Amino acid sequence: MTQLTDAKSGIVTEEMKFVADEEKIDVNYLRKLIEKGYVVIPKNINRKTKPVGIGDNLRTKVNVNLGTSPDFIDISCELKKVEISNKYGADAIMDLSTGGNLPEIRSQIMKNTNLPIGTVPIYEVGVDSKEKYGRVIDMDEDLIFNVIERQAQEGVDFMTLHCGITKQSVDTLNKDPRKMGVVSRGGAFLTAYIMYHNKENPLYRDFDYLLEILKEHDVTLSLGDGMRPGCLQDNTDRAQIQELITLGELVDRCREKGVQVMVEGPGHVPYNNIQANMQIQKTICKNAPFYVLGPIVTDLAPGYDHITAAIGGTLAAVSGANFLCYVTPAEHVRLMKEEEVKEGLIASKIAAQAADVAKGNPVAWNKERQMADARIKHDWERQFEIALDSDKPKKMREEIPSKDEKACSVCGDYCALLMVEELGKR
Amino acid sequence: MTQLTDAKSGIVTEEMKFVADEEKIDVNYLRKLIEKGYVVIPKNINRKTKPVGIGDNLRTKVNVNLGTSPDFIDISCELKKVEISNKYGADAIMDLSTGGNLPEIRSQIMKNTNLPIGTVPIYEVGVDSKEKYGRVIDMDEDLIFNVIERQAQEGVDFMTLHCGITKQSVDTLNKDPRKMGVVSRGGAFLTAYIMYHNKENPLYRDFDYLLEILKEHDVTLSLGDGMRPGCLQDNTDRAQIQELITLGELVDRCREKGVQVMVEGPGHVPYNNIQANMQIQKTICKNAPFYVLGPIVTDLAPGYDHITAAIGGTLAAVSGANFLCYVTPAEHVRLMKEEEVKEGLIASKIAAQAADVAKGNPVAWNKERQMADARIKHDWERQFEIALDSDKPKKMREEIPSKDEKACSVCGDYCALLMVEELGKR
Repeated sequence: MTQLTDAKSGIVTEEMKFVADEEKIDVNYLRKLIEKGYVVIPKNINRKTKPVGIGDNLRTKVNVNLGTSPDFIDISCELKKVEISNKYGADAIMDLSTGGNLPEIRSQIMKNTNLPIGTVPIYEVGVDSKEKYGRVIDMDEDLIFNVIERQAQEGVDFMTLHCGITKQSVDTLNKDPRKMGVVSRGGAFLTAYIMYHNKENPLYRDFDYLLEILKEHDVTLSLGDGMRPGCLQDNTDRAQIQELITLGELVDRCREKGVQVMVEGPGHVPYNNIQANMQIQKTICKNAPFYVLGPIVTDLAPGYDHITAAIGGTLAAVSGANFLCYVTPAEHVRLMKEEEVKEGLIASKIAAQAADVAKGNPVAWNKERQMADARIKHDWERQFEIALDSDKPKKMREEIPSKDEKACSVCGDYCALLMVEELGKR
Repeated sequence: MTQLTDAKSGIVTEEMKFVADEEKIDVNYLRKLIEKGYVVIPKNINRKTKPVGIGDNLRTKVNVNLGTSPDFIDISCELKKVEISNKYGADAIMDLSTGGNLPEIRSQIMKNTNLPIGTVPIYEVGVDSKEKYGRVIDMDEDLIFNVIERQAQEGVDFMTLHCGITKQSVDTLNKDPRKMGVVSRGGAFLTAYIMYHNKENPLYRDFDYLLEILKEHDVTLSLGDGMRPGCLQDNTDRAQIQELITLGELVDRCREKGVQVMVEGPGHVPYNNIQANMQIQKTICKNAPFYVLGPIVTDLAPGYDHITAAIGGTLAAVSGANFLCYVTPAEHVRLMKEEEVKEGLIASKIAAQAADVAKGNPVAWNKERQMADARIKHDWERQFEIALDSDKPKKMREEIPSKDEKACSVCGDYCALLMVEELGKR
């Protein structure tokens, strides 16, 4: 049974109760949202994790990507990234490792967090194929499903699978080529496979078989957007929307079979096109939870893409996105280090909070009220306690203290708050 | 003569030519925008600076705040901040010093940049009053105008003056008190003055005299928003809008007298109210250039307010703001250090670029195209050259290099771009 099949049968699960309590909403209302497919709780039956709800009418959630690459393999470093994710309030972690012993790395990561874990199984397939045959493109179709099944048994909670990269979407792309081509790694594996072998994507062709595997372990399917744009100019083109239509059709099939499903979205999108992207996803995919990478609103800021993504992510979340994949300052430059995981996570949490405030979420507003209360009282310790990151501002304040312990070193004696407060005492 | 009186007389100045060239727009069109008051070029006749246009149909501009405080006085540190502003593309600098020898600091700053310089003269008035009488509140009315005149003679290009803090707006505030009261420093000086002495704000009462001084040196008046909200809950309340109406009336008087004018705006604003704030400013102030501080979209991120401001700033600029005052990571914590000036400036430049892209600005789009071209060619040096910050990503990339010089250490052998490129070569 999955959360979705339970919801359809009118069963309120322990996971639903937990999520309803976290979100301060009625559990029967939540059950209905899950039944309709508007909300998912990615939780593999083989692993004990904190249930996290993703979808409309819930708070915006944030995912941390981490993992090794062929150029940098250090498990202890990845585990530090996990620790940071736990500490600073990530809602999920994706292990995107492509270097070293992948099952071992994944197992270590899962042991060190109770957050839902996501993967992109085609990476492991590609890495195995490269080892076995020397080329990713020679990947074995059986291997694809074997890897997915093994990861499902291990307890992976959600999987990105690029089922919408099909002969049709590749054809649409080739008829109207774009500047950057395919920039999704998994998408590129499958595009290359389709073009080289002139075969259909096995994940699309054998979609029903895929659903059987996922259903058995209640793995949430995250339909990957392999055709996402890789630069602003390529945004919202025919290939992207062609793939989205296929993803919408697959959403229907998931829901029919009782498999929880969400949909992934762009990418590099000019600010003025973000709302349209969110709205079209919601109509075509019938309100499936939307999981976005960024979006990045300018390509001019390598080294600062946590900021370009926070700008796009806020508007995306206000316009319909439910799950933000963080972006770190290292995006487009190199593999991220631990401290950049923190920077990316905080930036994404800011976007989520700003969007939840904009949508009138009471939990989000309550925190804002607490911060204002602490500020008006000049209660600095309390401010740090409520802050998304307590450590950084506390340390900063100590670096240039004010002579007046109530004030800060921006204004010192000329603190506006203290001046007007003083006046009120007369 | 001011740029505005010249524009009204049909005169195309050298400054207009320079700005039109920078913005790639027709100079007669620009002259008309200036004539209507939709665009200003803050340039004091007593100082040689780079002319910068601010207003509708031009690229979004970014201001850097810097300056000493009573708790931290180090001119060399401020001059490093000036150097950073020059290097990373600030469009203007405001010297907000309140500690040390203010005229000397200002003079040093002006010598070290050709960017337009702004000040908040009431700070110097407050500091002088405190020295002379022991209290800011005892400030001398003559001193106010003397300081303004002296700064105008020195060559200050634009001045923030809180002329809209009046008995009326203070009364509106007192009838419906807000959580954080007055958080604008200059606003607090004048609110305290009005309440303590029960006198009208001299800047409002003697507004015509003020305009005479400003006009003589072509100082652009930046009408300060002393009633801006200091937390999300206080946003867009009656006191703020009452002050805005007064500012709108003063805009008319500036334009009649030939004084260039822009209007300052909030502040702490929930994301969903930013657009309304921009639109109401544009109607009430008849399309005067709008200069916003942030806006900050959540109060939960001390240590990261360059990000909360970049999120709000992008939406503000898309919705009508023309000039973004940067916010640094030190905001709400302590005086900013040099490296934080850079972080704040880059974040604000990102917001400006993202907004200009959204508005279809051809200069902004051209840069995006250049970056995509460099990326598709794996031309890393060119990417760094085009980037808003060249140094940071270059250094980062060297830290974890890829074995493949075309790729980066995120994907290494599994680079999507290279994989699809390889396929195209067959």
